[in-house]
Amino acid sequence: MQGLELLTDLYELTMMQVYFKTNIINRYAIFDMFFRKNPFGSGYVVFAGLEQFIDYLQNLSFSKDSIDYLHSLNIFSDDFLDYCKAFQFTGNIYSFQEGDIVFPEEPIVRVEATLGQAQLIETALLNCINFQSLIATKSARICYAAKGRDVIEFGLRRAQGPDGGLSASRASVIGGCVGTSNVLAGKMFGIPVKGTHAHSFVMAYDNENEAFDHYTEVFPDASILLVDTYDTLGSGIKNAIAAAKKLAKKGKHLVGIRLDSGDLEYLSKQVRKMMDDEGLQYVKILASNDLDEYRIDELLKAGAPIDLFGVGTRLATGFGESALSGVYKMAAIEKDGKLIPKMKISDEISKGTIPSRKNVYRYYDFDNTIWFDLICQDEETVIKGNVYDIKGNKFTLDGHMISRCMHVPIFHNGTLVYDTPTLQEIRHYCYNNMQSLTRSIKDIHDPVSYDVYISPKLFSLLEKMRLSISDKKGLDYK
Amino acid sequence: MQGLELLTDLYELTMMQVYFKTNIINRYAIFDMFFRKNPFGSGYVVFAGLEQFIDYLQNLSFSKDSIDYLHSLNIFSDDFLDYCKAFQFTGNIYSFQEGDIVFPEEPIVRVEATLGQAQLIETALLNCINFQSLIATKSARICYAAKGRDVIEFGLRRAQGPDGGLSASRASVIGGCVGTSNVLAGKMFGIPVKGTHAHSFVMAYDNENEAFDHYTEVFPDASILLVDTYDTLGSGIKNAIAAAKKLAKKGKHLVGIRLDSGDLEYLSKQVRKMMDDEGLQYVKILASNDLDEYRIDELLKAGAPIDLFGVGTRLATGFGESALSGVYKMAAIEKDGKLIPKMKISDEISKGTIPSRKNVYRYYDFDNTIWFDLICQDEETVIKGNVYDIKGNKFTLDGHMISRCMHVPIFHNGTLVYDTPTLQEIRHYCYNNMQSLTRSIKDIHDPVSYDVYISPKLFSLLEKMRLSISDKKGLDYK
Repeated sequence: MQGLELLTDLYELTMMQVYFKTNIINRYAIFDMFFRKNPFGSGYVVFAGLEQFIDYLQNLSFSKDSIDYLHSLNIFSDDFLDYCKAFQFTGNIYSFQEGDIVFPEEPIVRVEATLGQAQLIETALLNCINFQSLIATKSARICYAAKGRDVIEFGLRRAQGPDGGLSASRASVIGGCVGTSNVLAGKMFGIPVKGTHAHSFVMAYDNENEAFDHYTEVFPDASILLVDTYDTLGSGIKNAIAAAKKLAKKGKHLVGIRLDSGDLEYLSKQVRKMMDDEGLQYVKILASNDLDEYRIDELLKAGAPIDLFGVGTRLATGFGESALSGVYKMAAIEKDGKLIPKMKISDEISKGTIPSRKNVYRYYDFDNTIWFDLICQDEETVIKGNVYDIKGNKFTLDGHMISRCMHVPIFHNGTLVYDTPTLQEIRHYCYNNMQSLTRSIKDIHDPVSYDVYISPKLFSLLEKMRLSISDKKGLDYK
Repeated sequence: MQGLELLTDLYELTMMQVYFKTNIINRYAIFDMFFRKNPFGSGYVVFAGLEQFIDYLQNLSFSKDSIDYLHSLNIFSDDFLDYCKAFQFTGNIYSFQEGDIVFPEEPIVRVEATLGQAQLIETALLNCINFQSLIATKSARICYAAKGRDVIEFGLRRAQGPDGGLSASRASVIGGCVGTSNVLAGKMFGIPVKGTHAHSFVMAYDNENEAFDHYTEVFPDASILLVDTYDTLGSGIKNAIAAAKKLAKKGKHLVGIRLDSGDLEYLSKQVRKMMDDEGLQYVKILASNDLDEYRIDELLKAGAPIDLFGVGTRLATGFGESALSGVYKMAAIEKDGKLIPKMKISDEISKGTIPSRKNVYRYYDFDNTIWFDLICQDEETVIKGNVYDIKGNKFTLDGHMISRCMHVPIFHNGTLVYDTPTLQEIRHYCYNNMQSLTRSIKDIHDPVSYDVYISPKLFSLLEKMRLSISDKKGLDYK
C-alpha cells in the first residue's frame, strides 16, 4: 500500500527534525516492540500483522504531495524536508513470525536502523501489529472454545472501518477461522468466503416457505437457511425442514439452518431433534448472535448440538478489550562508534523497559511442548545455569531442553530477506504452535501464566543500569 | 474511494442472485438503518460516517477484476454477473446529518431503491456509520467530561488498522476533539495536527536536560515536554522548568509539559505548584495515559489542574464497547405497484422492527431544548393528541412545541442532492446539538433515557401487523 508515509504521529516527525538539527539522525539505534499485558485475560497472544508492516516499509517514501502538506504546517524546515524527500528505509528488522505465540515483555519486533528511520516507522508498526495480533488472539481463543468446530468470521458490518474489517478477517484466519463473510477480504487474501442469508431476504417474499424454496432452488448445494425471521420453532424450522425434504427429493442436501436469536442452547436442541425426527441428521446447525469464546464454551458445555459458529462483532473488534497495548521503546543507540544500552524507568514500575540488543529463545521439551522463553543479550546462549524473572527471582536450567531463536531476519540493510508465507501457511503454523502450548496456558477463563526469563548477562546489565539511571536525569535545576 | 464494491458480506450477493432469478430484484424497497442500544451506557449517540458512505455510493460499480473474482467462486451465474456489471445506484437516501444526536429504535438512514440495490449497500452502510458514530459518541462523552478543556486524539498506534485510525480521528473531531496526532488524518480531513515527543527522544540524548534544550531550540513556540522518562518530580519537571526559563530569557514561552504515567492527580498538583513557584503560570499541563471520560471526570472533580488531555486507545477504539450495534432492516417492499409494509418479529422482542416508510420528527421547547422524538409514518405530522412508546403506553402532546423533520434528502434517483458540510462545520453543528440536550441525558454515569415516541398511525399499523404476522410464516410443514 502506497501513500502511508504520513500514517504516523506528528511527534515522530518533530522529533526527527530535532535529531536532524542536532546531527544525531543517522546514529544507529535499536528499538523493540513489545506489549505488557495479554488482552482478554488470555494466557498468550498470537503474533500477526507483519505482512502489512513489510508492505508499508517496502513502499515507504515521501510523495511530493506529502512534502507539500508537511511544508504547509509551518513547523518543518526546508533542509529537514529535503531529508524526508530522500528518505528510504535501509535498516534491519528481526521479528517473530506471524502465527507465533508471544508473551508480555518479550521484544517481538526488533528494529535496527538510523535513529530517524527507526523513529518514523514507530506508529505504523504499532498500528499493524497491535490490531492484527489482538484479533488473531481473540480468534484463537474462540476457535479453542469451539473445540474443532468451524468458526466463520462475520464481523464486517460492525468492524472499525473498511480496513478494520479487512485486517480483522485476515487475522481471524490466522487464529483459526475457516472463512469470512467479507468478500473483499476473500479476494485480497484468498480467504474462503461464506454466508447464509438475511431476515430481509425472507421478508422480500410473501412468506417464509416461498423464500426458502427460492433460495434452495438457486443454491441447491450451498443453502443455510435462517429460521428466526418470524418464529424459530413455530415456523422457521418447519419451513426449513420442508425445504430440506424437497431438496432431498432432487438428490440434494440442505447444508444447514442458522439460529440468530433466542436461547441458542434450547433452540439448537429442539431444532436438532425436529430435524433428526425427519431423517435430516446431515443438516448442520450454525449459531450466531453476539457470540464469543465464553458463550461458545457455555453452549458446548451445556451440550448444545451446534456444528458451526458465525462470530461477528466480538471477534472483529476484539470486544472486551479493543486494543493490544503494544509499545515501541529504544533499547540502545550508537555514540562514537559504541552501542550504548538505553532504558526507561517510570513512576510506574510496569512502564520500565529492558535495555540493549536482545533475542528471545524458546525452550521446548522433547515432546515438542513449549516450556518457557528466555530473553538474552545479543546472541548469548544459555543451556544450563541460572536465569531470572523480571523481579529478580532465580531459576536454574538443567540443560535438558531444546531451544530455538524466535527472531528471524525480515529486512537486512533495507532489503526484504524473508520469504512471506501464505495466509493458509500462517494459519497452519499457528495451529501447530497452539498444539505445542500446554492446555493450562490456553484456558479461556483462568490461564496459568507462561514463564519468560531473563538471561544472566541481561539481568546483570538491568541491575547495573537501574542503579546508574540518575546519570541520565542530567539535572541542571537550581 | 474506489474498489469497495466487494466490501460486502457474501450473503448480500447470494440473496441478490435469488432476487434476480425470481424476478423481484427491481422491486422498489425501503430499508432502515437503526440501532437498538446506546453504547457505553450513554444517553445518546452522535451520528457520523455519512460522508464516507456518500463517497462509497458515488463510486459504486463493479470492476472487471471484481467480476472475475466473483466468477471464480463458482456460485454466481453469468446472467447475474451481467446484472452486476451494469450495476449503479439509482435510489433515494434520506438520513440524519453528521453531528446530529440520535437515539435507539429511530431510523437514522432510510434507503429507498430497487431491492437489489438496497440489499448490496447494507454492509458498507453499516460499516461506515456504526464505527464513526461509535467514536463520535465516545469523543462527545470525553469532551463533555473535560468541561471545555481541549482534548486531542492520540489513538493511531492502537487503532484498529490504518483506516481504523483515520476514521477515528475524523469522528473524534465531530464529537469535539480539537486535533489529532495522526498526520495523514490531518492531511485528508484538514484536522489540526498536534503532538509532543516520546520517551525515546529523551533517551536518544545523553541526558534529559540536553534533550529538552534541543527540543525547545528547534520548536521554541511549540514545545510540550514529556517529563516522565526517568523521574517526573525528581528530574523531569525540574529540567522542564529549566528549559522554560531559558526560553523565557529569549522572550519565548514553553507551551506545556506532559504527564504520561503515575498518579495524575497528585503529579499535576505538584507540578503546577513547582511551575507556579517559578513564575511559569502560563505553562500548561497535558495529561495522557489510558484516559477516558470516567478518568477525566475523576481527575477534574479531584481538582487536578490539568489544562488539556491527550486521549488515545480508549477514544480511537471505543474502549469498553468496541462496536455500535446498528442494523439494517426491510421496512416495506412494492408488489403489484403497491407498497407493502414489512416487519420482523423475533424470539427476542428487542430484535423486532417497525414497519413502513418512516420519518423522525424532533420536538423542541421554545428555549431550543431538545425534548423528545416522534417516529411517524411517511409525512404524517402530529402536533396535538396521543402518541405511544414502543410498549404501547400512551402520552399526550399539548401542541406547545416546535418540531423539525430530521431526515434530509441525500440522494435522489441516484444523484447526490446534499451539500456535504466541512468537518469543522459538522463539529460546530454537533456542539450546538449537544448544547440543546438536557444535562441529565448527557450525564456520563447514569443518564436519563430520552423519549422516542411512535405516532398514532404507526402504532396502529404496528399492532395490526403484530396480529397478522402468522400469514407471513407460510407454513407448509406437515
